[in-house]
Amino acid sequence: MIERLAVIGVGLIGGSLARALRAADAVGEVIGCGRSLENLKLALELGVIDDYVLEPGDAVADADMVFIAVPLGAIAGVFAKIKGRLPARAVVTDGGSVKGSVVSDARRVFGGNVPSWLVPGHPIAGTERSGVGSSFPDLYQNRRVILTPVPETDPGAVARVRAMWEQVGSEVTEMSVEHHDEVLAATSHLPHMLAFGLVDALARMRSNDEIFRYAAGGFRDFTRIASSSPEMWRDICLANAEALSGMLSRFGDEMNELSNTIRSADADALLSIFERARAARERYVDGLEPSTGAD
Amino acid sequence: MIERLAVIGVGLIGGSLARALRAADAVGEVIGCGRSLENLKLALELGVIDDYVLEPGDAVADADMVFIAVPLGAIAGVFAKIKGRLPARAVVTDGGSVKGSVVSDARRVFGGNVPSWLVPGHPIAGTERSGVGSSFPDLYQNRRVILTPVPETDPGAVARVRAMWEQVGSEVTEMSVEHHDEVLAATSHLPHMLAFGLVDALARMRSNDEIFRYAAGGFRDFTRIASSSPEMWRDICLANAEALSGMLSRFGDEMNELSNTIRSADADALLSIFERARAARERYVDGLEPSTGAD
Repeated sequence: MIERLAVIGVGLIGGSLARALRAADAVGEVIGCGRSLENLKLALELGVIDDYVLEPGDAVADADMVFIAVPLGAIAGVFAKIKGRLPARAVVTDGGSVKGSVVSDARRVFGGNVPSWLVPGHPIAGTERSGVGSSFPDLYQNRRVILTPVPETDPGAVARVRAMWEQVGSEVTEMSVEHHDEVLAATSHLPHMLAFGLVDALARMRSNDEIFRYAAGGFRDFTRIASSSPEMWRDICLANAEALSGMLSRFGDEMNELSNTIRSADADALLSIFERARAARERYVDGLEPSTGAD
Repeated sequence: MIERLAVIGVGLIGGSLARALRAADAVGEVIGCGRSLENLKLALELGVIDDYVLEPGDAVADADMVFIAVPLGAIAGVFAKIKGRLPARAVVTDGGSVKGSVVSDARRVFGGNVPSWLVPGHPIAGTERSGVGSSFPDLYQNRRVILTPVPETDPGAVARVRAMWEQVGSEVTEMSVEHHDEVLAATSHLPHMLAFGLVDALARMRSNDEIFRYAAGGFRDFTRIASSSPEMWRDICLANAEALSGMLSRFGDEMNELSNTIRSADADALLSIFERARAARERYVDGLEPSTGAD
């Protein structure tokens, strides 16, 4: 049971955790904090939070659990504002899509070491919408949450964060920061780059109006994730630059190779690529939950 | 009103046209033809066709409308088998996803000229399933059908094919063979290559089991089209090699550029790519029908 939860950044991700914990009767009081007064008022009106403050330091002052759900580029600023303001019993976790940048932000702000009470985390859930108005209590049901504790992290803090996510229906696993960032580069960041890149390439073509007119259903699904927040994805690219840029340039080379295979009319090679891909997708992906949106 | 429709290839595409024309009371008799006796028996049992024959020449002998819905690689063979067997009143159209190869197959088989009764066509519809068991009468409702007549094509034949597609709820437009193949390379063939390529790249990674386990909803949608038929896509690649390989290598180069933009931490450039893509998608794609599958 969490007595007082502070949610820094009451949007889709932060708001849905608050709603889910309330629905599970697993939290006493929820304090919201953010930069938009209007959004905080809406969160209060919707019953997502019990009260709000505008300063992260004030929000955490009496909390036993803190969830930071701000864009990656804003996390260091939140760390700086809560520094020295946390009660001894408090545990802090976050929802950032890249963990390497969160850990290095923490080292910089807190003076070399990652504080033992900080449990870097990432719920693999979301939709392409944002804002507290889009939040809902079931967002984390049957979703995976990855925690990436570092050597300094207190195992007791990890256990409390794990228990929180399990209470809202998530399956929690742990892995290293580096491994998380590699896996997410492959499964989320790279696909988003391809969707953004494809739509952008088509938009820059001559007669793009006509091209989009003939785009059918498959194209719509394929590019839906290109409607995600541009600011969020800029931050993710900058935060996971090494893993993502490596994967992107490998993928670019592979598309050039595939182009040559097509040009040389190598029917057998094409068939085996497509068969391998279909088999892999059916083996791995068909077991996933139906989509609720981008991640 | 079509008196006698011959459907060569009674799968998802051919079977759905037969069902739709029946539902619209726009056809007298439907004769099916294909290589699989089992599939034809199923089509008969399902009421999709009234009778079947195994030889395309026999199927068309008394038809006033012929729909060829076989894989691109099999179209030339069908042309050879119906050559000299068509009644004078018959019009022939097809459902191939690439039109340049259909037209050059026709020139080759019919001796230099495309016959005046052949109207190359492409209904932009489909799902990732195949076979007559997956066919349904609404497949073409509110879908676009592109006809690509050549100079030799009889305008009266085009009008009859257009009327047929309009009767099943499709919006028919005409464009040149070359333009069709460019537009489809961009909106359908390239996205399929990216989806196949992405799944294949991930399947070849170390710890691919784990990677797929953390793939979430967006990934599932993004790669759904990679479950389409490998044989069909091999044929499409070979048939539209020039337009598609050109687009793929340009896209490969762009992904390499994006990789460099990320590596050099050019935040403004990233934001403008993502903003442009989101705006383009919202402007063009959100007006599309909900997906019924791959195309």
